[in-house]
Amino acid sequence: MTSSHASDVPPAPAPAPSAAECRAAAGRLAGVAVRTPLLEAPLLNEQVGGRVLVKAEVLQRTGSFKFRGAYNRIGRLSPEARAGGVVAFSSGNHAQGVALAARLLGVPAVIVMPNDAPAVKIANTRRYGAEVVLIERDDELRERVARELTAERGATLVKPFDDPLVIAGQGTVGLEIVAQAEEAGIRPDAVLVPCGGGGLVSGTAIALTEHWPDVAIHAVEPEGFDDTRRSLASGRRERNPRETGSTCDALLSPTPGEVTFAINRRLLAGGLAVSDSEVAHAMAVAFDTLRLVIEPGGAVALAAVLSAKFDARRKTVVVVASGGNVDPALFAEVLQNRR
Amino acid sequence: MTSSHASDVPPAPAPAPSAAECRAAAGRLAGVAVRTPLLEAPLLNEQVGGRVLVKAEVLQRTGSFKFRGAYNRIGRLSPEARAGGVVAFSSGNHAQGVALAARLLGVPAVIVMPNDAPAVKIANTRRYGAEVVLIERDDELRERVARELTAERGATLVKPFDDPLVIAGQGTVGLEIVAQAEEAGIRPDAVLVPCGGGGLVSGTAIALTEHWPDVAIHAVEPEGFDDTRRSLASGRRERNPRETGSTCDALLSPTPGEVTFAINRRLLAGGLAVSDSEVAHAMAVAFDTLRLVIEPGGAVALAAVLSAKFDARRKTVVVVASGGNVDPALFAEVLQNRR
Repeated sequence: MTSSHASDVPPAPAPAPSAAECRAAAGRLAGVAVRTPLLEAPLLNEQVGGRVLVKAEVLQRTGSFKFRGAYNRIGRLSPEARAGGVVAFSSGNHAQGVALAARLLGVPAVIVMPNDAPAVKIANTRRYGAEVVLIERDDELRERVARELTAERGATLVKPFDDPLVIAGQGTVGLEIVAQAEEAGIRPDAVLVPCGGGGLVSGTAIALTEHWPDVAIHAVEPEGFDDTRRSLASGRRERNPRETGSTCDALLSPTPGEVTFAINRRLLAGGLAVSDSEVAHAMAVAFDTLRLVIEPGGAVALAAVLSAKFDARRKTVVVVASGGNVDPALFAEVLQNRR
Repeated sequence: MTSSHASDVPPAPAPAPSAAECRAAAGRLAGVAVRTPLLEAPLLNEQVGGRVLVKAEVLQRTGSFKFRGAYNRIGRLSPEARAGGVVAFSSGNHAQGVALAARLLGVPAVIVMPNDAPAVKIANTRRYGAEVVLIERDDELRERVARELTAERGATLVKPFDDPLVIAGQGTVGLEIVAQAEEAGIRPDAVLVPCGGGGLVSGTAIALTEHWPDVAIHAVEPEGFDDTRRSLASGRRERNPRETGSTCDALLSPTPGEVTFAINRRLLAGGLAVSDSEVAHAMAVAFDTLRLVIEPGGAVALAAVLSAKFDARRKTVVVVASGGNVDPALFAEVLQNRR
């Protein structure tokens, strides 16, 4: 059996960042990124029957954790590389994180976006100072544009997740969770993290497990896009059957990253998948009890505890709310159609 | 002229809390209240043409700053007084703040609410553990119920704003603004604070002016309910012509408090009034750029800078977002009808 699957062969050891590299990233981000609060609400705890602490990355600059990794990556470029600028592909949160990080570091940025991306995301990426290149949604075209831009301009590609410096930047979320929980005298049983390509959960896991070797860390994904959950179960990188069809637009990566999966298979307890209606309910509960705007992809970890996909009764659980860039019409619909 | 107006006679010196009393309140609230973040968003700054820092009290426990004053007040009761419990009148944020503070301090609480208060606010106040007594909206009845409850049970009335210990508790918002701005190397030109009875703005002003004697502090109110603005201009406590008719349900006090006005006339630069449509626009901008849910009354200070009622161009301005307890249907409407 195994001989027929190339992906069964374990990949060469991936260059996972160390916890020390996460701490170095925290030093670079100090005073630049928001130390987002770890929030608790009695009425949320009551609904879950346990203690839920919400790491509010929706309050991060550009509205998602992506700013952390982008700033750490671009901040480590050599002066020569900075002069050539950076390139990124994204229709959403990574685009905005790279655009603002590049502007703050004085580095030119080109963001290649699909021409069907929401107008507000294109406009915001431009407002952060990036040059936006719109192309058709097409993998081959995308590859060619990437090659041309990096070759022509000497620009550096900033990957969305599969890069040790990006992962180390996202790991600062984990460092803050540890510090904030310890300030409050709390030791969580579990930490649940939204997962697309796996950059946030892998970086967070590196930082968390150094301090809390026994904490149970779970990746949470949308149903039908649970490539990481299935990959953790099978031990090899699985693919999703589809690339569209969930409201969680931030979490639709087709397969786990090489670097991120090598970390996640070592450090995670497992994966969970939630439905779009469970996500919508979590968004409404966050509105009521936390006064936070969470986008669908950012609400999957909270949805896992509210739906009891993860049984949080009599436990203390940290959930990361990873982003809040949601279309106002969709958010209004979620509030009006709540169950 | 003056002889015909009893209110022209300056009141006896009111017992304003000192900055030291605000610091004592901060000590009592440490680890209990949320140190809410001071947030900044490039896309908000761009809209205003200045630098805007938002003190996010919507993230406070129970969703508004009211928890601070209530906890400080109830925490200072003698053991005998605690045994008799506390009473409060409120249809909204004060009710929830008193209910949770009393529960955390082990003090029984009765909250008297008008029977037309939103069902969710009544339910939440009960969930925080308070006994809720529903009465008709009627000033005379309210007075009688207050007398009966305090007399029968030996309970203590927790006033919503006109109490030095409540004001000192709200003043911790000002202490945090000073500390957070100094951590970031920022010295604001002005601080804008939502104002109903004036507890939040007066306490905040006491704390701010000790550190920044020249900062311009403005109370912001809804149009038609700008009793503090007019009182600051005339030098005596003015009344609003109406008690209903603004979406800013948290800011409809008929006249400034005695204690709060004595502080505000000494420390504030002036007052500003904003329209309901300016408030709705500010709520939508906060959704887009800050990922915060702000209720109408909590959004008036942000509305003042976005509408240019306060000219923030080339200035650094702190605005307090004082609460986020808003009906989901109203919030959805604001997102759908945005201009």
